[in-house]
Amino acid sequence: MRSEIEHHKNLESTLREVRDLLERQALVSRLVERQESPRQEIVQSLLARQHEAELEKKLNKLHPADAAFVLEGLPQGQRLTAWRLVDRELHGAILLELSAPVRASLVTLLDEPQLAALGQQMESEDFAGLIQQLPQDMVSRILSRLDSRERTEVRSILAFPAGSVGSLMQLDVVSLYADSTLEQGIATLRQRQNLPEQLTAVSVVDRNNVLLGVLTLDRLIVGAGDTTIGAVMNTAPVFFFTDDRVDDAATAFERYDLISAPVVNLHRQVVGWLAVDAVLDYVKQDSFKQSLSQVGLSEDEDMFAPIWSSGRKRWVWLGLNLLTAFVASRVVGAFEGSISQLAALAALMPIVASIGGNTGNQTAALVIRGLALAKLDGRNLQFLLRKELSIGLMNGALWGAAMGACTLLLYGSLPLAAVMAAAMLLNMLLGALVGVLCPAALHWRGRDPVMGSSILLTAPTDSLGFLIFLGLATLVLL
Amino acid sequence: MRSEIEHHKNLESTLREVRDLLERQALVSRLVERQESPRQEIVQSLLARQHEAELEKKLNKLHPADAAFVLEGLPQGQRLTAWRLVDRELHGAILLELSAPVRASLVTLLDEPQLAALGQQMESEDFAGLIQQLPQDMVSRILSRLDSRERTEVRSILAFPAGSVGSLMQLDVVSLYADSTLEQGIATLRQRQNLPEQLTAVSVVDRNNVLLGVLTLDRLIVGAGDTTIGAVMNTAPVFFFTDDRVDDAATAFERYDLISAPVVNLHRQVVGWLAVDAVLDYVKQDSFKQSLSQVGLSEDEDMFAPIWSSGRKRWVWLGLNLLTAFVASRVVGAFEGSISQLAALAALMPIVASIGGNTGNQTAALVIRGLALAKLDGRNLQFLLRKELSIGLMNGALWGAAMGACTLLLYGSLPLAAVMAAAMLLNMLLGALVGVLCPAALHWRGRDPVMGSSILLTAPTDSLGFLIFLGLATLVLL
Repeated sequence: MRSEIEHHKNLESTLREVRDLLERQALVSRLVERQESPRQEIVQSLLARQHEAELEKKLNKLHPADAAFVLEGLPQGQRLTAWRLVDRELHGAILLELSAPVRASLVTLLDEPQLAALGQQMESEDFAGLIQQLPQDMVSRILSRLDSRERTEVRSILAFPAGSVGSLMQLDVVSLYADSTLEQGIATLRQRQNLPEQLTAVSVVDRNNVLLGVLTLDRLIVGAGDTTIGAVMNTAPVFFFTDDRVDDAATAFERYDLISAPVVNLHRQVVGWLAVDAVLDYVKQDSFKQSLSQVGLSEDEDMFAPIWSSGRKRWVWLGLNLLTAFVASRVVGAFEGSISQLAALAALMPIVASIGGNTGNQTAALVIRGLALAKLDGRNLQFLLRKELSIGLMNGALWGAAMGACTLLLYGSLPLAAVMAAAMLLNMLLGALVGVLCPAALHWRGRDPVMGSSILLTAPTDSLGFLIFLGLATLVLL
Repeated sequence: MRSEIEHHKNLESTLREVRDLLERQALVSRLVERQESPRQEIVQSLLARQHEAELEKKLNKLHPADAAFVLEGLPQGQRLTAWRLVDRELHGAILLELSAPVRASLVTLLDEPQLAALGQQMESEDFAGLIQQLPQDMVSRILSRLDSRERTEVRSILAFPAGSVGSLMQLDVVSLYADSTLEQGIATLRQRQNLPEQLTAVSVVDRNNVLLGVLTLDRLIVGAGDTTIGAVMNTAPVFFFTDDRVDDAATAFERYDLISAPVVNLHRQVVGWLAVDAVLDYVKQDSFKQSLSQVGLSEDEDMFAPIWSSGRKRWVWLGLNLLTAFVASRVVGAFEGSISQLAALAALMPIVASIGGNTGNQTAALVIRGLALAKLDGRNLQFLLRKELSIGLMNGALWGAAMGACTLLLYGSLPLAAVMAAAMLLNMLLGALVGVLCPAALHWRGRDPVMGSSILLTAPTDSLGFLIFLGLATLVLL
């Protein structure tokens, strides 16, 4: 028995121990290579083997999720060494718990017969998730090694697109008939040799397997034995179609406090079961993905991936950022004449751009949240736009005046101070406008409004901010 | 019976219908005020009442979570009108489903007797969550109106700090003795009049209520009646102490695919139960909070809150942003002499600042994720820092060269192009350095590394970026 928190501290120290052992072992191996004396060699190879044995014992004793945690915390080389020490029976369970990029790097170490062997051990839906990123022809060859029932199940899961409920559901479903009694229901459950893990409810169907309701286990236990199942089941359960999006399912799980729900085909026949643990994994991953995609990193990244591949992933958005910065630079370039006359403009212009970008980012964060919660539509948007513009007006007037006063103190020029205040106000209004419209437009064109938002937003607030400030200054001052 | 997705589409159209009804009703009321003719008045007040009745029926028929969704989607005025039409028995359930700021605005509409009445209806932990944001003396007065058992329970929940497992746990626990048989266990469950909602497992304890294990309901059903509970229970369940953090609990739920877990006091006695639905709600809210706090918005915000209060919330970070921008501006100001001689510097300097900020933000997003997953410690950090600096070197050399070439084409000056390329490289290295160290430092000082990260990060990359570029240019060119 363990408290999670104590346990977690232990886990971090396990990670440290594993790393120490690996380092010691590597050290010994290096020594062995260098030494010529055969006696020392023997001693040291014994030492290395002893470390290895200790490590092996430690790794194979861990919960698969904990072993995954340790593996993810190791640099590439050490990770491979440790992975080779893991018992073959644990491969499947650990692979499932790894993050996608780390998993991909380890799956490629297994050959086809090994993968096929995993397929026989694991649940079909888990195995399908494991092999779906492999090349198509390799998948076919692996599938041909499975027995026909397993193959059919894995194929049917692979047929559902990623992100659909079908691709995430369990195939192992327990169904009872509505006209059975609770006693008969209990007997049916007892007859099954293997109940699905984490069974908390069963689907209730008619003779054509069409969904009629859901019966939770507590009702099955508490009710009188001769009651019919149809009389105590939940007749209006939430259910999903196989092609519903997992995103929407996650919202439903949260909103209605679901623990599990049946999945049906178009004929409303029960074909699978969606459990909260799969949904929780999905939500957690998704929330990390969001914070990464804001800066243009589309996928989860293995912290220990090689430099070249990590670096290249950032090119698209770095390039885009450079392009927008270049446009902003050309705007400034157009006013080089004004700037040579009054270099103070160059010093003040970054403030205008920065405050506009900040306003835009604050507004966009709220809008993106509203969109994600489906609380924003065309009519709301008008309201929100008016509100954000009003806030921009209020804060712009306030902070613009403050900054105008600073400018007056620094440069002693009232016209310059007035230009500064006006430009700040205008660029904060622009920031509010862009902050509302840019994510909304992306969303309604079916794109992810978070993706690269920090770059897309500052492009207009920078360029137009410079234009507003330098343009006003040229008109008023020069 | 409903599919969640169909249902969701209906929900959005319900929101639209409710808004239409409210608008029509408001229109009719305004007409009534304006018209003098008594006949018309009667017709129109009938109309208004008819709309109201229709609305009332629609609202009270919704699932509480759905009613909350509709209420959150309405502007302040309409929201209050709609709230007044909601049945009093539904108040508690709906309030629980509302986001914190909207809930706070509606709770204040209830007087103390109404709140106390809610306290009698609701579960203690839910009611505690509802009143914990109210002023202290009001809470005391409300508590004094509750019966003594309810009062004690609510008080004990309120005693746990927010964010602790104790503040989120259910108090209603079902425990069985390890030496009872499964049959006796089932009988015990049947004797209890009200089982907790969503019961999926029970805790197994000794006569002193000390936790020995956990028994899931499927094992209770499937096992032979004369087996003892101790023989089939999970003897090594994950459990939590009341003062463990919900964050850590959420990680454990995800990692070990938990559905529920017992909560114990320091004597390992079972005092509560933590269920996955509470954890899922917490994770979802947390992920939104993160994206907001990045731009310095600390709390969830009601999209329809008044302008003044929404605007003020943004002051702290706007002010901080202005301060950092001002520092950057003074750096530029120190080089006004160079800029008057070569205005091209003013045009090129935003590019250097921007690319540094972007590199910093990308790196920080990865580091923040690593910190959240507890995958980063002192030793890893060194590795990651080296890696990010290498990526910065690689990308900086590449994009710096590209931008240098552009500069050469635009301005025809090789020295200027060289300065540009060097400054870009240096500022990208700086971005990588700040992107790793800034969140790590905040984290190890016990602060939230996400809070305002977009502003804190760009402060050094802007100021030092300007310094590097303008300083190099002054040295080399002038």
